[in-house]
Amino acid sequence: MGFMGKRGQSKGALERQADATAGLPELTDATRCNGTALRKAMRRVSQLYDEVLAPCGLRSTQRSLLMHIARAGNPTMGELAEALVLDRSALAHNLKPLERDGFIEIVVDDKDRRSRRIALTTLGNAKLAESMKLWAQAQRRFEHVFGEEEARALRATLHRIASSQFEEAFLAAPDS
Amino acid sequence: MGFMGKRGQSKGALERQADATAGLPELTDATRCNGTALRKAMRRVSQLYDEVLAPCGLRSTQRSLLMHIARAGNPTMGELAEALVLDRSALAHNLKPLERDGFIEIVVDDKDRRSRRIALTTLGNAKLAESMKLWAQAQRRFEHVFGEEEARALRATLHRIASSQFEEAFLAAPDS
Repeated sequence: MGFMGKRGQSKGALERQADATAGLPELTDATRCNGTALRKAMRRVSQLYDEVLAPCGLRSTQRSLLMHIARAGNPTMGELAEALVLDRSALAHNLKPLERDGFIEIVVDDKDRRSRRIALTTLGNAKLAESMKLWAQAQRRFEHVFGEEEARALRATLHRIASSQFEEAFLAAPDS
Repeated sequence: MGFMGKRGQSKGALERQADATAGLPELTDATRCNGTALRKAMRRVSQLYDEVLAPCGLRSTQRSLLMHIARAGNPTMGELAEALVLDRSALAHNLKPLERDGFIEIVVDDKDRRSRRIALTTLGNAKLAESMKLWAQAQRRFEHVFGEEEARALRATLHRIASSQFEEAFLAAPDS
């Protein structure tokens, strides 16, 4: 039956939907998309980590951002965007609530006054430190279920996919 | 040097940032977070797939949504949210542009008039069909670089992580 789906209502507005599937080529399994598989797993893990992190008030995306800023020292917007595999406008959007809450500040680079660097504030450092125990708890729970070695191997695979080398190879791949 | 980062500016506003790191516990490697690793790989693959899909005007998240609606027949909001590992408000947010563009419609369930079902329109079906070749091209490129068998194994792992069974096991895991 393929594209018609499991629940074959065929009344009213839904009838048009059924008709619309007529000339459509056989669709491959929705579970075959590599991007969708990554997105669903990411959403699940984000939700689970967010729940554990809730007492500190950071979501896992925010904690990850603060962590990257702390690790990089005072990265430029471009450096941070690259490290997080984000475009600059998405990064700016994600930084806004952290700036509003006083966890980061965006400062003029002392060496290049046209450039901006992102700095953790004292408050941001304290918040990051506060989140560490909760994050470690989430990691332990994940690895209790998934396996510690398996998690290490998965991260290595995921880092490979996230790398700019992977991007280059993908763009250079033949189309047939 | 750990937390101070690679670029140790210590002038002006950045000085405060350096000071702020003083009492902070040694931070674990930013590359150790399972959630962050998933997020970065997902972002990379989304960007790469989006680029290939661009000629049809859908982003990969949108294509995935249309695909899930098509596969499920006419899912309720709750069914679709569960299949996509999304909460309902995020799903509603993601559906808005697809409804505005006339690819889907939200219709009253014929059997339960309090319930809403999501239906692909004729236009939505045509758009999904149009996207198939481009999506297949993105998949081939990914698997050319990553390996077809490896991709299959990775998807199986990711589906396991995205499952509600994984969620249950995570929530039941001990904290120490």
